[in-house]
Order: sequence, then structure tokens, then C-alpha cells
Amino acid sequence: MLADAGIVLTPGEVDDIELADFGLGRLEEVGLQIVVYVNTERVCAKELVMFPGQLCPEHRHPPVGDDPGKEETFRVRTGSIHLHVAGTDHELGPGDQVTIPPDTLHWFQAGADGAIVSEFSTRSRDETDVFTDPRIVR
Amino acid sequence: MLADAGIVLTPGEVDDIELADFGLGRLEEVGLQIVVYVNTERVCAKELVMFPGQLCPEHRHPPVGDDPGKEETFRVRTGSIHLHVAGTDHELGPGDQVTIPPDTLHWFQAGADGAIVSEFSTRSRDETDVFTDPRIVR
Repeated sequence: MLADAGIVLTPGEVDDIELADFGLGRLEEVGLQIVVYVNTERVCAKELVMFPGQLCPEHRHPPVGDDPGKEETFRVRTGSIHLHVAGTDHELGPGDQVTIPPDTLHWFQAGADGAIVSEFSTRSRDETDVFTDPRIVR
Repeated sequence: MLADAGIVLTPGEVDDIELADFGLGRLEEVGLQIVVYVNTERVCAKELVMFPGQLCPEHRHPPVGDDPGKEETFRVRTGSIHLHVAGTDHELGPGDQVTIPPDTLHWFQAGADGAIVSEFSTRSRDETDVFTDPRIVR
């Protein structure tokens, strides 16, 4: 999917693609495939690759120390997603984007063709994410 | 160039592409074409489109108030650039990237085929950039 979208990865980046199943063991339905380009103390950038209908379940990024929580912008590159943020629903296609404030509940699901979504954010601290479903372990 | 690279922009984004000639009036030789996706207090993401041989002249992003200065990661999407950072030269092609610390002198020039470069950074405050060439006005 990434190559079809014209996105070039190094061999090391291909090896390091993260398959996040959120501890549920149903990756194709609930999960994400993640390429992390950079994650410094201040800035993070990723590509999120999603299978058709794949869901990233509801969660928020809480404050950690001096950090008010992760701020994320999702920009759809290919395909489509349904993004739910703090009670509002967004249907996003190529070129559409939404910025999610820190500590704000959100979830998103890929459309019938899957999706590639660029994420631009402050530092990622996945281990501190708070999921609504108590079965989820990040 | 963006469309050829599979990068989709909204009509509004196309209208808002910034042509930065740094006040020198020689855009094709010294300049950048810039698409700003997002620029919040904390995070900025852009695409930089460069003509063949086009130069972004030497500059740095100084501290501003509590901000230690802009931190940038440049990731080449298509084409190639020569990037000079604090005395070190980098030849970057598709999939290659370098992170530039705050307040650090750098310049870059596109190769013979031009380049598209994704920039992931902290907030952009272009008006505070410090250029080595005193004729430059940002």
C-alpha cells in the first residue's frame, strides 16, 4: 500500500513497521500498521496504514509531567477514514485533515479501501495512552 | 510535481502555496515552494517543493521566548537534496531524513531533478529566522 501511494521507506523502516493489535489479537479488525519517521522530545511523525474496515479504538493522550498531552493532526493520503473526536464525526478522504487537541477522546476506522494517514504530532508516549476498552493493553 | 508524487492537496491548499524568494527576486535559483499542512503552537508539518538546483540559503531558527528554537526533520520524498548542517554535508534521496537541532545553521539545495521534502517540526515562526546573507528578508 505504501509503495502504491508513492511513499518510499528505507529497508530498516520496512523491518521496523509496528503491528499494533492493542493486545486483542484481532489485528485485521482492530489494529494499526505504523511507520515511525521521527519521535523526538518535541515532534513525532508517522504513517498509519489501515486495512479495509480496520478500527483504532477510542483513546486519549493524557498529560504526562510538563507535557499537556499529545496533540495530533491526522491527514489522509489515500483511501478514507471515519474519525470521531469528542462527539463529532468526520468523513475524511485524500487531502482532508483534522487536528485533535491533547487529552481528547477519539477513534477512527478505515473505509472500504483501507487508508494511509499521515500523523503529525508532539512526542508519542504510547504506553501512557488511555483506552476506553479496559481489555486493551498498548 | 506534487500530483506526480501522489500527494493530494485541497483546492484551498493549492491556492495557498507559498512562493518564498527570500526577498532576492530570483525564485528559480534561490527559493522554496511551500505547502503548510498545519502550524499550531506545538507542531508544524509542510511539504517543500524545490526546482532543479534551487537553493534554500543558510539560516538558523533562534530561541524565541520560552521556545528554544525550531527543531526540523527533513525527509526526502522524491528527487534529491544536498543538506549542510553545522559543518556536515548530507546527500539525501527518497526515504532519507535528517533532524536539525534548534538554532543550528543549515542550508540545502535540490539536485538535478528537483525534490519534494516533507518537513516535520515544532512551530514555524519564519519572521524570526536568521539568515547568513544580510540581503535576505523573510
